[in-house]
Amino acid sequence: MADEYEYIAALRTLATDPAARGLMDDAAVLPVGDIRLVLTSDTLVEGVHFLASDPADSIGWKLAAVNLSDLAAKGATPRACLMNYALSGNDDWDADFLRGLRAALDIYGMPLIGGDTVAMPKGAPRSFTLTAIGEAGSGPVPARSGARAGDILYVTGPVGDSGAGLALLTAGQKPNDNPTTNCLIDAYRRPQPRLAQGQALVPYVTAMMDISDGLLIDARRMGEASGVGIVIDHVPLSDAFIALHGPDARIAAATSGDDYELLFAAAPDVALPVPAIAVGRCEAGVGLRLILDGKPIPLPERLGYQHTAYSERLT
Amino acid sequence: MADEYEYIAALRTLATDPAARGLMDDAAVLPVGDIRLVLTSDTLVEGVHFLASDPADSIGWKLAAVNLSDLAAKGATPRACLMNYALSGNDDWDADFLRGLRAALDIYGMPLIGGDTVAMPKGAPRSFTLTAIGEAGSGPVPARSGARAGDILYVTGPVGDSGAGLALLTAGQKPNDNPTTNCLIDAYRRPQPRLAQGQALVPYVTAMMDISDGLLIDARRMGEASGVGIVIDHVPLSDAFIALHGPDARIAAATSGDDYELLFAAAPDVALPVPAIAVGRCEAGVGLRLILDGKPIPLPERLGYQHTAYSERLT
Repeated sequence: MADEYEYIAALRTLATDPAARGLMDDAAVLPVGDIRLVLTSDTLVEGVHFLASDPADSIGWKLAAVNLSDLAAKGATPRACLMNYALSGNDDWDADFLRGLRAALDIYGMPLIGGDTVAMPKGAPRSFTLTAIGEAGSGPVPARSGARAGDILYVTGPVGDSGAGLALLTAGQKPNDNPTTNCLIDAYRRPQPRLAQGQALVPYVTAMMDISDGLLIDARRMGEASGVGIVIDHVPLSDAFIALHGPDARIAAATSGDDYELLFAAAPDVALPVPAIAVGRCEAGVGLRLILDGKPIPLPERLGYQHTAYSERLT
Repeated sequence: MADEYEYIAALRTLATDPAARGLMDDAAVLPVGDIRLVLTSDTLVEGVHFLASDPADSIGWKLAAVNLSDLAAKGATPRACLMNYALSGNDDWDADFLRGLRAALDIYGMPLIGGDTVAMPKGAPRSFTLTAIGEAGSGPVPARSGARAGDILYVTGPVGDSGAGLALLTAGQKPNDNPTTNCLIDAYRRPQPRLAQGQALVPYVTAMMDISDGLLIDARRMGEASGVGIVIDHVPLSDAFIALHGPDARIAAATSGDDYELLFAAAPDVALPVPAIAVGRCEAGVGLRLILDGKPIPLPERLGYQHTAYSERLT
């Protein structure tokens, strides 16, 4: 098991319950009486998923937000969460963390109901886990795997802002009075889970997931899970991103991850209930093709974050 | 917030949902339709909750067992779990861990349905989280807080074996052909969650919890939560414990923790459905008294593990 993917293959042999969805999805779907619970759990590690210099309150926020984003991808309504907290050894830091966490839990209506607190050995990186529990709406719970040839692929917003924010931070940029850089840094530190959009979209989509590792790699994953080929022909960028990098840095934006927009597929004749941006389509076949300005573009070597490469990204 | 307890006090101000039970209990109880889910999440950290030298399969087992023990304390039936796994960087170790985890999940019927896998920075201690979801039976879900003056206090088995096993390991003892030492080491490495006992006991108990930090400290916690005083007048020891330490090392046994037996209170006239050992009683008032062989014994300075002192215990 040389990397995470091989380990997960071994793990899948344990996860044969239908609720696990083969560990191929963003969340588990567990029937409890007539209700289907959506369960997801993400761990954030210092130096891997966040920078040691990120403000504590932003890390508390992000821990909630990345899990809420997985609920959003299932169109679920948050019900409760449990948090496993490694004490930082610094009272102010812990208090700030809780402030950021509380803000996200309050805004998105997800009460904290339990968890665990541990004191880590000296020098260990900070590490936090949150397990989010949501309730699915009526109708099928969207998966990555339902997209069909002919479907249009959409995203709920531009991509690349978070990656641009991270790049600014690793280059030593600090939040200042420049709204452009602040906006990008904020996208990295305070992602906004698309819960309302996810809930509204459920009846309209054939497949849905959140973009956590990059548009290209996540779109390819949706294609693989659905047994269709993917064509990406548009990479939507924000004004802030364009102001910093110009309109041509589309490959960077499509591979940088941490976007937490929803990526979904829907039949071409569907009128969507929320604003969304078409980024491509599903076709018969396999694989991922990139066509920009009408021209086929060779795929970059790196389509997005491989999880085990997170640490490279911060060094 | 100089220690875990102050941090948890701050955390409680976030956890006002009734399902959280004020973070005063072993688990959260979340109503989902007509069903009450019991949710708990424990993290195990290398050098804190297990020894770096413990076999990987025993750590996988223990991660499941400590969470199952919390479900047992609520009389819950395991439904599913999510695991957050930090890749060890060693293929064989990861495979062994999964083997031990699988054994516990199979025996106790708790399917793995999701979670997360992360690559930790080099040199970080191993760290694993499991979130267990169970279903409560009919009737009230036992809490720590229901004990009444006059109730008898019971445990489901002897205490101290696990602590004795840990002491052997930290003194350099390895499993060998001595059944006594092996039995104690096994108690430390492979705790047996008392699920069947917990389920059977629900209708008979006024309060129930598992003994994770030591009989004395956990009994005091039950007394505090219930608003009663606690008298402990018996510390049940196993043959293996007595063979190693003699019959008088009762304070060590009552403060060493990691026992994972159930501690519960029941009215004196109740005929219990499973074997249990009376260890004391609840009385009007507050505090903890220890009476052995008919004589009041001064309380030891350390009643059990304080969580932030875990690391001291291993050094």
